[in-house]
Amino acid sequence: MFARRIDQLCSSLVRDILAATKRPGMISFAGGLPAEEALFRPEQLDASLLASAWQYGETEGEPALRAAIALLGRELGLDCRPEQVLIVNGSQQGIDLVSKLMIDEGTPVLTEAPAYLAALQSFGLFGARFCPVKVEPTGADLAGFERTLPDVRFAYLTPTFQNPSGYCYTDAERDAVAASLDRHDVMLFEDDPYRALSYDGEAPLPIAGRLNKARWIYQGSFSKTLAPGLRLGFLIVHPDLVSPLTRLKQAADLHSNRISQTIVADLLARGELARHVAAVLPLYRERRDAMAQALQTHLGDRVQWSLPSGGLFFWVKLAGHCDTMALMRRALESGVAVMPGEPFFPAGSEASWLRLNFSHANPAQIDAGMARLATLLDAA
Amino acid sequence: MFARRIDQLCSSLVRDILAATKRPGMISFAGGLPAEEALFRPEQLDASLLASAWQYGETEGEPALRAAIALLGRELGLDCRPEQVLIVNGSQQGIDLVSKLMIDEGTPVLTEAPAYLAALQSFGLFGARFCPVKVEPTGADLAGFERTLPDVRFAYLTPTFQNPSGYCYTDAERDAVAASLDRHDVMLFEDDPYRALSYDGEAPLPIAGRLNKARWIYQGSFSKTLAPGLRLGFLIVHPDLVSPLTRLKQAADLHSNRISQTIVADLLARGELARHVAAVLPLYRERRDAMAQALQTHLGDRVQWSLPSGGLFFWVKLAGHCDTMALMRRALESGVAVMPGEPFFPAGSEASWLRLNFSHANPAQIDAGMARLATLLDAA
Repeated sequence: MFARRIDQLCSSLVRDILAATKRPGMISFAGGLPAEEALFRPEQLDASLLASAWQYGETEGEPALRAAIALLGRELGLDCRPEQVLIVNGSQQGIDLVSKLMIDEGTPVLTEAPAYLAALQSFGLFGARFCPVKVEPTGADLAGFERTLPDVRFAYLTPTFQNPSGYCYTDAERDAVAASLDRHDVMLFEDDPYRALSYDGEAPLPIAGRLNKARWIYQGSFSKTLAPGLRLGFLIVHPDLVSPLTRLKQAADLHSNRISQTIVADLLARGELARHVAAVLPLYRERRDAMAQALQTHLGDRVQWSLPSGGLFFWVKLAGHCDTMALMRRALESGVAVMPGEPFFPAGSEASWLRLNFSHANPAQIDAGMARLATLLDAA
Repeated sequence: MFARRIDQLCSSLVRDILAATKRPGMISFAGGLPAEEALFRPEQLDASLLASAWQYGETEGEPALRAAIALLGRELGLDCRPEQVLIVNGSQQGIDLVSKLMIDEGTPVLTEAPAYLAALQSFGLFGARFCPVKVEPTGADLAGFERTLPDVRFAYLTPTFQNPSGYCYTDAERDAVAASLDRHDVMLFEDDPYRALSYDGEAPLPIAGRLNKARWIYQGSFSKTLAPGLRLGFLIVHPDLVSPLTRLKQAADLHSNRISQTIVADLLARGELARHVAAVLPLYRERRDAMAQALQTHLGDRVQWSLPSGGLFFWVKLAGHCDTMALMRRALESGVAVMPGEPFFPAGSEASWLRLNFSHANPAQIDAGMARLATLLDAA
């Protein structure tokens, strides 16, 4: 009745959790939403700016936006021209397009373990076979990369403030992974939505710019820095990949929304992106620190975690064995939404991890929510 | 190196033709662009209207927009509630999602011959095997439907002012096709982007609303009635299909652009869509009639065609055998862009057809372009 891939469609777990977070009084650590206070909200929209945004546009994206993004890419050490930039509807569409480009039924794909849940879902939908490499608070498993890369068609990595682990690869790790990718000539898909949300100094430059031989796709997003409702992200890609990805984008939806593209191109031209990010970083840093304090105060040595230097999440390991799916359900009943760690593991779930978002709730809610979690853990 | 489906990515023919139409002085009959004069262009955008458009939104779409579209659906005879409406980034994304829902490598799909080129491309990308049924200026091949339906997983039809043929199924044909679909319990994907562009009275109601047993997906778009740059269309679907299509949309890009959705929901609430369409119909009717006149004057009995009662295209058969690919190239050199008919045929191309768009050029350009075409045909 349906295509076989529909059997792969994940359970509604994540949708159910996120739906529950809308209940009045719920304190949500479950999603990945930017703080309401941090959203870019223009006070006025200039209709004349949008005068040419209504007809069909170019599949690759608005030329002014592509040029501005190529400039950002070069600042990050990527060897790129505007022709290598493809505008997409947020990172999720980039993941869909790369899935289409690379994955047949059974195609081996290297991912981190843990890894971004929605990327695993998309790759799985197209039939990927996951080849995981561990990333732990102490570092990435470099020997694992070297061992696994010969067997895969491409590697999907989020080396900068990873979702869910918050881990940020060091310069040395980035160089080592780049050398491995070059040695085995394996394409890198580097997903980098959190780079700008850096609370303790700038993150090391992307891995993509450190490659000499292997091909690469670098992905960025305006969802975390400006506003998710814009649905705007970008791929910067190795020259060989421009043509097939552009055709896949054309088959997917012809081109991205021109209103959003025009708004963001204008913001970039006026330096407003950097100003907006600088203005919201203190808010995020405050919430991160509030969650660190609340974890310390209420959960103490019942949990292990590292302070994330960027991104939106704490990755928390519970002491002893804990059924986090059951914990999640009990937490929802007591008005706190948390995300169990299981679905972030591509092959064989590991128990006892929670992903806790610190950007959506305010410091008082963070403290109250963590106190409720402590009560639940005591009762368990 | 890439997934196998990349071998299926079509040649750049259409992209090349459309790129050529941008050359100064080119008269384009090649694309499917709304007239510049007919685009919805708001004189001002109310930033307060958009106040809640910046955070992540619901995968299914904005509730107000879904409710307004369900109302339109019921006016078209579809038995639907707002929960059955899924907002997409224009029709092309609807086609991508339905491809994912239904098509495995080798899945048999009934399409009309000729059929909408970009749907054939998307279905082909996912591995469809095409089972064509002829649609000719004299009518649809009803016996062909009855013969072909038992062998296919779903049927893709554009019964109302089809792209490319312009054909509009009669009420009797719609009833017969609906009965065939019910008899064989085959899902219908009815694509209906041109319904509002009707120049000689209202089109018969959709086939989807005439089904009693078979499941259905009805697709509409705001690209032809308001503006393509909004990248907004919708699916109204049988209740069984809501959940898998919503998850596929979530995996594709989480949700559609909220700025566009908010703008269109507001237009619908204020009755502006119907007013805008009523205001632009005379322009399109004038251009259709100008092209009919120019065909008559310059090409005479070297061509056969029927006057389209809606949509944006003439479907023109050249007398005798004509290599329309060669004609297209010579026409580009003399400043006229036309679309060869070959790629619209899903299995085995038929020669000697041209698709001519009448909405983009003005009446003087239409006359001049047709005179140039006549000169080329005389020389051939």
